[in-house]
Amino acid sequence: MNLGQQLRSAVMRAIRVHQWGGPEVLKCETNVPVPKPGENQVLIKVHASGINPVDTYIRSGVYASKPELPYTPGSDAAGVVEAVGPNVTNFKKGDRVYSASCVSGAYAEYAVSDVVNAGHLGEKLSYSQGASLGVPYYTAYRALVKKAQIKPGETVLVHGASGAVGLASVQIARSQGLRVLGTAGTPEGLKLVSRNGASDVFNHREEGYAEKILAATGGKGPNVILEMLSNVNLQRDLEMVNFQGRIVVIGCRGTIEINPRLMMGKESQVMGMMLRASTPDEWRETTAFLEDGMVSGWLQPVVGKEYPLEDVAKAHDDIINNTGTLGKLVLKL
Amino acid sequence: MNLGQQLRSAVMRAIRVHQWGGPEVLKCETNVPVPKPGENQVLIKVHASGINPVDTYIRSGVYASKPELPYTPGSDAAGVVEAVGPNVTNFKKGDRVYSASCVSGAYAEYAVSDVVNAGHLGEKLSYSQGASLGVPYYTAYRALVKKAQIKPGETVLVHGASGAVGLASVQIARSQGLRVLGTAGTPEGLKLVSRNGASDVFNHREEGYAEKILAATGGKGPNVILEMLSNVNLQRDLEMVNFQGRIVVIGCRGTIEINPRLMMGKESQVMGMMLRASTPDEWRETTAFLEDGMVSGWLQPVVGKEYPLEDVAKAHDDIINNTGTLGKLVLKL
Repeated sequence: MNLGQQLRSAVMRAIRVHQWGGPEVLKCETNVPVPKPGENQVLIKVHASGINPVDTYIRSGVYASKPELPYTPGSDAAGVVEAVGPNVTNFKKGDRVYSASCVSGAYAEYAVSDVVNAGHLGEKLSYSQGASLGVPYYTAYRALVKKAQIKPGETVLVHGASGAVGLASVQIARSQGLRVLGTAGTPEGLKLVSRNGASDVFNHREEGYAEKILAATGGKGPNVILEMLSNVNLQRDLEMVNFQGRIVVIGCRGTIEINPRLMMGKESQVMGMMLRASTPDEWRETTAFLEDGMVSGWLQPVVGKEYPLEDVAKAHDDIINNTGTLGKLVLKL
Repeated sequence: MNLGQQLRSAVMRAIRVHQWGGPEVLKCETNVPVPKPGENQVLIKVHASGINPVDTYIRSGVYASKPELPYTPGSDAAGVVEAVGPNVTNFKKGDRVYSASCVSGAYAEYAVSDVVNAGHLGEKLSYSQGASLGVPYYTAYRALVKKAQIKPGETVLVHGASGAVGLASVQIARSQGLRVLGTAGTPEGLKLVSRNGASDVFNHREEGYAEKILAATGGKGPNVILEMLSNVNLQRDLEMVNFQGRIVVIGCRGTIEINPRLMMGKESQVMGMMLRASTPDEWRETTAFLEDGMVSGWLQPVVGKEYPLEDVAKAHDDIINNTGTLGKLVLKL
């Protein structure tokens, strides 16, 4: 039996969702067919899968863009290349690899990714760290570089800096020569944000933390604010941001009253972002940037907690309901 | 007596404000000293002065940035160069000229302008048209080119297109190869907006006009929206704007509830702007663009109504309280 025949006949363990709903709809099955790589795709033997908040929105059925049922959740994976499509030249069987957008679902023993969404996993990083690269680092890069267009010497405020996107943002901003202010909700979170490069940290559960942020910037405010909860913070961000500052809306769970006049006097900007709007060239640019960060060594994903594949429901519950998240939640295979 | 002595001893008619308040604080005086041009300034014999809404905000005392009392209002003037400062090389006595930022106040027979805020008035334009260039055209250029970064083939929606900034925006956007949709509140206004280059016009006093705008763009929405009344329209703009669209906040009179999530899915941006934040290079760029527009012929300021200098109080009342403004209000000297 050649490899092609093996793949056609092979089955694997994978999480399957047959109906929209809570974490309990995530079923671990053992006879799921191993997917096959297309012309410009790689098949990854998955060692770790990253859990992202968006995975839970899709699973619950409320997300605007949904896959057809049944499906395997998950976009982020790391592992070893098992097979490559006929047009693939930059990966070969045995390469350590990660993907930020597995087309067949990352919560599985094998996953297929388009080459454009995959990168080489540096030798210094574990597979769990590799599974933490996808959505968090590509989101942080898009927010900071493509949207806010950060410049060395600027100050960035990362709201909710102890989560996966937050920590990725802190590391990327530091690597580009910015001063980083970070907020978190627990002492452990604040310590973690400091350790990853923030010069000043603030507990966003404490009264008056916005005034402290303003004071830390000499009253001028940050040049850039990454906002994970804009329905709560946007008006305060508009008050706080520096002249010609940029506020990137990465997360939002409702409406908020704002005064747009604040934007006129400061010529500030509010910019929405969505990772999936990235063009192929933007994916490639980000991958090159991150591969370089792994070689340089500043790129160090923080893995918060690892779960076996069959505990995926618990992981989905934790990522939404456990406040004070520290780093990335990962499924180990 | 040489020119210097003449200027030192000369007096002129000018509007003076000695206390903050309503239009009645605008006093026409006859013995105001003629100002003197500094090293990089020109002295303009004013033939027409432009009235801008911001003039009324400053006069009432509520504006954030106020001159010291007493002062002469007005930023925009057109006329003939009477004298130039020692470092001035690009203007000479007798040149037709306009300014977008007279430092001594434009509501006067003579006004001084920094060279960086002045341009040559094309032969095809009247002085009243020249007095209409300043704030409206520099604001429209900054909003469209420097902020929204318009591209040929895009569609721009100009809210309140029959006012001075609106008509300037319509003309500039058309000159750059954009399709222009405009709103106005009266049949005459709609006609005027059409005549200045809008392909489609909408009465913003009619129920359901937003749906008509959406339909006119094939359901996709405009790429760029210029918003003069963001406290009323911003949420609807966010709903309506195209993928990766830009909404420029040019005017605002209060707060509004918005849903920032709309900005994420479309990667849209809201950007504030303030003309006075322009750098000297940006002033020069805009002046070069407008001087070229006068030569090309597409730049045609629409003068709505002319008032003698002593009727300035009426003009201030009209610009704020007369709805359905058609073009620019100008003082003739």
